[in-house]
Amino acid sequence: MRRKDLKRTFKLIPYEKALHRLEDAAHIEPLEIEEVAIEKSAGRVLAIDIVSMQNIPKKNLAVFDGYAIQSTDSMNASARNPVTLKIVGKTFPGETPHKLSSGQTVFTACGAPVPKASDAVIKTENVQLLEDEIQLRFSVEPGENIALAGEDVEKGSLILEKGCFLRPQDVGLLAGTGMKAIKVFKRPKVGILSVGDELIKLGEKNPDKIVNNYALIVSNLVSEFGGTPLLLGIAPDNLEQIKKKLSEALEKTDIVATIAGCSVGPKDLVPDAINALGEPGIVFHGVKLSPGKVMGAGIVKDKPIVMLPGHIVSTYAGFYLILAHLIAQNSGLGKKFPLSVVKARITRDVKAKPIASFLRVRLVNVDGEFEAEPVKGDSSVLTSLVRSNGYTIVPKGEGIKKGTAVEVVIYDRYEFTHIMRS
Amino acid sequence: MRRKDLKRTFKLIPYEKALHRLEDAAHIEPLEIEEVAIEKSAGRVLAIDIVSMQNIPKKNLAVFDGYAIQSTDSMNASARNPVTLKIVGKTFPGETPHKLSSGQTVFTACGAPVPKASDAVIKTENVQLLEDEIQLRFSVEPGENIALAGEDVEKGSLILEKGCFLRPQDVGLLAGTGMKAIKVFKRPKVGILSVGDELIKLGEKNPDKIVNNYALIVSNLVSEFGGTPLLLGIAPDNLEQIKKKLSEALEKTDIVATIAGCSVGPKDLVPDAINALGEPGIVFHGVKLSPGKVMGAGIVKDKPIVMLPGHIVSTYAGFYLILAHLIAQNSGLGKKFPLSVVKARITRDVKAKPIASFLRVRLVNVDGEFEAEPVKGDSSVLTSLVRSNGYTIVPKGEGIKKGTAVEVVIYDRYEFTHIMRS
Repeated sequence: MRRKDLKRTFKLIPYEKALHRLEDAAHIEPLEIEEVAIEKSAGRVLAIDIVSMQNIPKKNLAVFDGYAIQSTDSMNASARNPVTLKIVGKTFPGETPHKLSSGQTVFTACGAPVPKASDAVIKTENVQLLEDEIQLRFSVEPGENIALAGEDVEKGSLILEKGCFLRPQDVGLLAGTGMKAIKVFKRPKVGILSVGDELIKLGEKNPDKIVNNYALIVSNLVSEFGGTPLLLGIAPDNLEQIKKKLSEALEKTDIVATIAGCSVGPKDLVPDAINALGEPGIVFHGVKLSPGKVMGAGIVKDKPIVMLPGHIVSTYAGFYLILAHLIAQNSGLGKKFPLSVVKARITRDVKAKPIASFLRVRLVNVDGEFEAEPVKGDSSVLTSLVRSNGYTIVPKGEGIKKGTAVEVVIYDRYEFTHIMRS
Repeated sequence: MRRKDLKRTFKLIPYEKALHRLEDAAHIEPLEIEEVAIEKSAGRVLAIDIVSMQNIPKKNLAVFDGYAIQSTDSMNASARNPVTLKIVGKTFPGETPHKLSSGQTVFTACGAPVPKASDAVIKTENVQLLEDEIQLRFSVEPGENIALAGEDVEKGSLILEKGCFLRPQDVGLLAGTGMKAIKVFKRPKVGILSVGDELIKLGEKNPDKIVNNYALIVSNLVSEFGGTPLLLGIAPDNLEQIKKKLSEALEKTDIVATIAGCSVGPKDLVPDAINALGEPGIVFHGVKLSPGKVMGAGIVKDKPIVMLPGHIVSTYAGFYLILAHLIAQNSGLGKKFPLSVVKARITRDVKAKPIASFLRVRLVNVDGEFEAEPVKGDSSVLTSLVRSNGYTIVPKGEGIKKGTAVEVVIYDRYEFTHIMRS
């Protein structure tokens, strides 16, 4: 039943090699730059290095409510020999600093600028307050309780580097230096095409058919990893229709992901469709990993098409091992893969297998350390993903002994609320 | 300079006790339930238990391309004594299962329903294919290569419990059982009010003033933790104006967070404003933690008002130790706090202090295990948060010896791309 007239390229290679081969062939670069309002910049990838246009703080500020003085005035102060300074004013945050001479002091509220002539602030609770004077009973060092201008950020310094995800604190820092808009890389548009005669739309009813729920899962994963998903619906198991849908997808997206139709059966037509659409076509098809063996990818019109297998656990393997990397690189993150990786001890022996395996694990947090319990289930069992929080790769020919620490990739941020505490 | 006419309640208590006191006083319940389309449900908190209305798979399905048989037909098969079965048809996914009798077989593609009378599928590569017959050279067990109806999800079984964040795979599971809309808890609306005469709006210029960038940070953190932030602008250091802004905030939000104005100086008027607005007013003010000592909270009109301190590191402490918990509980997550907690070894000695401290750490991932490098900087130094990825609490009176493993709360998901790999 094999079609000998079509180029078939199914050949198992290690999944790391598969990714490298795809990366080499695809020349993945970050997308164009766009400018977004600073309020909308969290979670975006910074497209340029940022040099601060100002000092933070802009002026020397008091760190506590207290009395600004010249530290030399306190030089000989002691309990036996207190020094008295005259209060000549008070300054609150946002006000212009008061003037000060030797022998004088200014009440300076926390966050208020200190007088130019002053180099120390003594906390309110550490002075003896008289009518319009204070008494000091100890000497202080220059700089005491003062945040110096530029101490947090120096004008002209590099504060954030191109290619990082902007976190809440980064956004705050950029806003603090006076920026209103930020240059970020565009989010990659990822088209998702499901393939199969058996599929029906979400919400449709037909006892013989299956709803297209995997596309929804992949679309949510794409969002989670910084891409903009575009659901392209269902293509039947028909070469011309798959080609047509893929052609349309290539027009409006940066990366295309197909789900199913990439095994080696008579109705697995996605590889043929990719090869028929243009050079180089399929770049790899088949990896030495189970579940996930039939994943693959091709390049058409300089855009990658990732073939995610149709069994959901294999779909996950293809997403994390191939597609997520392309999204990250297309986003401008480069090889900085936005995965949560933790170390965890396996709770039972895992048998050696002839090829590497994508092992689902359920994490249990035991006093901040993780245990990883292998989760069973066929590659088509979605609930095995619901019952697990991440995966680890078991190398080929090697089992894992109970108690061994392995690296676990946590599927996404939401897992943390699902991870049980023992 | 203290105003003796106003009730003052500043008193340091342990931060855990502060949170409990607030929780007890506030009776925080999840908000109302709303229904959202399944496509929009990822990241929302499920409001009801979900029982599956159908089996997944709906029918017995072939797990590989192969031949469906009655396993009893294979009982005596061996290489010496092969059994021959007649091919009577083929079935692909989404089709109605073929009929089958003893002595017969049906080609069944991966994912296709198997004939009712069949209880095993033999992989294509494991049979000898003749014209319209196959030869078996070994016996198979019942159930071989078949995913049984209900194997993944059984009709009538509880598949997801109320009070969990919906992850991509959960959404897929719900869609797979035929659901189109999901009942979730409303997201809590969190009002954010900045307080201080020194503050100006983002993008405004004034050499004596400071832009209100901390509100933007808190707003992004609120979003990250599942709340809907509402930026309420700036209130000056004026009791009446703070009261007015807070009253308005209480009308349109579920939780109010103030930033700054909650220390013990003459212009720290937020506690007074809260006490003046109604009973019980301030519930706690002051925690035994540094930075973060002056955080506090009150309740007015049954709604919590969290006073986040004005120094940004203290603001963070208040967010993670108090506000994030309220958002989680109001979201319907209960005590399941959506934080990423990992264990990490401290890279240098941390000195004992008389009260607990909120220690910022920079994480380095060494072969999947984390090292935590303490990050220095005054409580007002925003770049110390930019340079760190999370925090750990150093207990009072206890230092941490270099090499000790501590629990680190990772600020949010974006940190994972910032954590250095050694």
